[in-house]
Amino acid sequence: MVKALVHVTLKPDVLDPQGKAIQRAATSLGYDAVRGVRQGKLFEIELDVRDEEQARKLVTELSSKLLANPVIESFDIVRIATSPSP
Amino acid sequence: MVKALVHVTLKPDVLDPQGKAIQRAATSLGYDAVRGVRQGKLFEIELDVRDEEQARKLVTELSSKLLANPVIESFDIVRIATSPSP
Repeated sequence: MVKALVHVTLKPDVLDPQGKAIQRAATSLGYDAVRGVRQGKLFEIELDVRDEEQARKLVTELSSKLLANPVIESFDIVRIATSPSP
Repeated sequence: MVKALVHVTLKPDVLDPQGKAIQRAATSLGYDAVRGVRQGKLFEIELDVRDEEQARKLVTELSSKLLANPVIESFDIVRIATSPSP
């Protein structure tokens, strides 16, 4: 089994109202040092593939077709690692 | 300016219907190798603090009070790094 970790984040020029709301909440709790918050998504994916190269190819396809909206989001495959079967 | 990256994920025994939906969508697109998907959140936080130690303390507080619901989620401070001022 191969495990992959993918980050999906809004492109820099896309507004992030959730992040803004969290920043405001932090300020109202007294955390004035918080200057910016951007929220994104992460996906932990388990794959039954023969090797990490095949996993990377599959995860790249999945990310661009299913996990990220390419108009407003970018994805980053942060980690691909073979894990011992449970 | 210090930048922090925080992962917030559902605890292992908490059901993840979003992840399940993505897994089903992947299967229906022909990606049968996808055996499991768990979705989480990530937060990129910019902090105006004097050093990374202070940043870590602040981000730990923020994560447990504001970013994660400790009943069903865990958080992980993945990275704390000083970034050059823009």
